[in-house]
Amino acid sequence: MNDPARFRNDAVARLRDAVPGPAIVAASGGIDSTVAAVLAHEALGDRSHPLLVDTGLLRAGEVAAVEATFRTLGVPLTVVPAADRFLGALDGVTDPEEKRRRIGRTFIRVFEEEADRRGTDRLVQGTIAPDWIESGGALRDTIKTHHNVGGVPTDSRLTLVEPLRDLYKDEVRALAELLRVPEAHRQPFPGPGLAVRVNGPVTAERVAIARTANAIVEEEVDRAIAAGTLPRPWQYFAVLLPVRAVGVTGDNRVFGEAVVVRVVDSVDAMTATAVAVPPELLRGVAERITRSLAGRVTRVLFDVTDKPPATIEWE
Amino acid sequence: MNDPARFRNDAVARLRDAVPGPAIVAASGGIDSTVAAVLAHEALGDRSHPLLVDTGLLRAGEVAAVEATFRTLGVPLTVVPAADRFLGALDGVTDPEEKRRRIGRTFIRVFEEEADRRGTDRLVQGTIAPDWIESGGALRDTIKTHHNVGGVPTDSRLTLVEPLRDLYKDEVRALAELLRVPEAHRQPFPGPGLAVRVNGPVTAERVAIARTANAIVEEEVDRAIAAGTLPRPWQYFAVLLPVRAVGVTGDNRVFGEAVVVRVVDSVDAMTATAVAVPPELLRGVAERITRSLAGRVTRVLFDVTDKPPATIEWE
Repeated sequence: MNDPARFRNDAVARLRDAVPGPAIVAASGGIDSTVAAVLAHEALGDRSHPLLVDTGLLRAGEVAAVEATFRTLGVPLTVVPAADRFLGALDGVTDPEEKRRRIGRTFIRVFEEEADRRGTDRLVQGTIAPDWIESGGALRDTIKTHHNVGGVPTDSRLTLVEPLRDLYKDEVRALAELLRVPEAHRQPFPGPGLAVRVNGPVTAERVAIARTANAIVEEEVDRAIAAGTLPRPWQYFAVLLPVRAVGVTGDNRVFGEAVVVRVVDSVDAMTATAVAVPPELLRGVAERITRSLAGRVTRVLFDVTDKPPATIEWE
Repeated sequence: MNDPARFRNDAVARLRDAVPGPAIVAASGGIDSTVAAVLAHEALGDRSHPLLVDTGLLRAGEVAAVEATFRTLGVPLTVVPAADRFLGALDGVTDPEEKRRRIGRTFIRVFEEEADRRGTDRLVQGTIAPDWIESGGALRDTIKTHHNVGGVPTDSRLTLVEPLRDLYKDEVRALAELLRVPEAHRQPFPGPGLAVRVNGPVTAERVAIARTANAIVEEEVDRAIAAGTLPRPWQYFAVLLPVRAVGVTGDNRVFGEAVVVRVVDSVDAMTATAVAVPPELLRGVAERITRSLAGRVTRVLFDVTDKPPATIEWE
C-alpha cells in the first residue's frame, strides 16, 4: 500500500462489490477490526452492522471502551451478550487447543445467527497479512491461527470479506491515522480473551479473578510508564494458574492459586524478551493482587522466559 | 543452654538414661539431626543406628553428601532405600496436606520396621524448640508441624527421644561447632523433600524434573554468591507447577510445565521477603532450565510474594 487515501477508496469500492446486501462486521476494539468497521461503514452505510460479541472473557471496562471509540467515530455498534454461551462451551475444558476450538466455534455460531437475523451471509473481518502468513505460511495452522479466533469452519454458511487482508501492521496504522481511528496504546489482546489467561478450567469465578489481576497489572504498568520508570512494553498482562499454594492469613494456613505477571518487549511478536521490570513495581503488583484477591490468590509470579522457548501468551 | 560443653555432657547422660538398649536415629543431613546423631553416638556407641531414609524425594547428590559428612564425623550411617514406597504412597495425591500426611506415615512405618529389626522402640530425633513451639503453641498443629514430617502417630510403637528439644537454632549451631558438625551453608530443606516442590501429582518423572531445576537454581545462586553479585539468601529453590503452557521449538508448538524460582531472605522463617534477584541471574537460570528440560518445561517464573501472605515453601 503506497498511499492510504487511495487504498481507502479502492477498499470502499471492493467492499461495495463484495457485499450486495447487508453485512455483519466483527468488531473487537483492536485497531484492525476497527479500521475494517470504518471502511465497511463508509462503503455500506446502514447495511453494515458492526457487532462486538461480549464473550464474558473481555477485560475490565473493555465493552464500554469499544463503545466509546465507535461513538467517537460515528459508527454504530451492537453489543451481543454471549457470556453464558461461551462459559457453557468451555465447561470442563482444560486443554488449551480445545479451548480455542470451542471459542472459535462459538464465535462462528453467534455470527451465523446474527447474520441470519439480518438476512445476510457476509462477515467483514479485519484479518491482516500476518494473521495468515507466518514464516511462509507453513505455520498457518499451528502457531498463528491459535492466536486469533481461528478460521471459519468449512461447514459455515458465512462468506468472509477481508478488506485488509494484504496489509501489514504499519500500513494499518497509517490507514487508522487517516480514518482517525485512535490506537491509544492498546496492547495486542488475544481473540479468545481471558480464556487463554485462565490456565486450567475456565469458570466465571476464575475469569473474574483473571480480570481483576489483569486490570491491576495494566494499571500499575501504565502508572510506571507515565512516571517514566518503565519504557512502554509490547505487552503486559496476568495469567491465573490452577495450582494450590499455601499462604498465611493471621494464624491460619490458606490455599490459593497463583497469578503470573508477564511483561514482554517485542518488535513483531515473532520473538520477545521478558522485560527486566523494576523490583518495586513487581512488589507493588504482588501486594495489590494478593490483597484484592485475598483467599483466592496466594502467589504472584513474574514470568522470566523469552520467546522462544516460551510464547508471549500462555495458551 | 549457657555452656555447650556442659550441655553435651548432660545430653549424653540423659541419652544413656533414656535408651537402655539399641536406638535408631533419624538422620536427614540437617544440622539438628546430625548433632543429635553425634550425641547419640557418643552416648550409645554401637547401640546407636543413624538412618538416612532415601525417600526418592531428596535433592541431587544429597545422599552422597550426608554420607560424606557422617564419614568425616566418624559416625556410622545406614541409608534405607525407600523411593518406591514413598512414590507409591503419593500415587494420585495432589492435596498438599494429604501429601504431608502420607509422607509422615510412610516415614514412621519405615522407622518402625527398622526399629523392629534392631529390637528397639527408641527413635532419636533432632527436634528443636521452634519445631514444636510456634507463636505460643497455638499453631503447633497448623503451620509448623507441616513443615517437618509431622509427629509420631498415636498408634505407633515408637518412643521418641529428643535430646535437643529445648534448644533454639543458635544454640544448636554453638553445639555443632563444639562437635565439629559442618553446617556448610546448608539451606533449610523440608522434611517431605521434593514432594512439596512438586505441585500437583508426584510422579518419578516430575520429581526428577524438580530435582534438576532445584540443582540449577542452587548452582546459579551459589555462583552469584561466590562472585559477590548476590548476598547469601536464606533459602533458594525451585517448584514444579502442574500447568500446560505453550512454547515454541523451531516451527512447532510444544506444551510444557512451569518452574517457579523462589529466593527469599528471612531472619527466623516466621516472615520472609522475596529477594530482588539481579535480572541477569534470573535470565541465566531460565535459559538453563528451559534448555536442560526442553520439551518438559516451557516457563520459568520468579516468585515475588513475601511471607505473609505467602509462605516460604509452596505446600
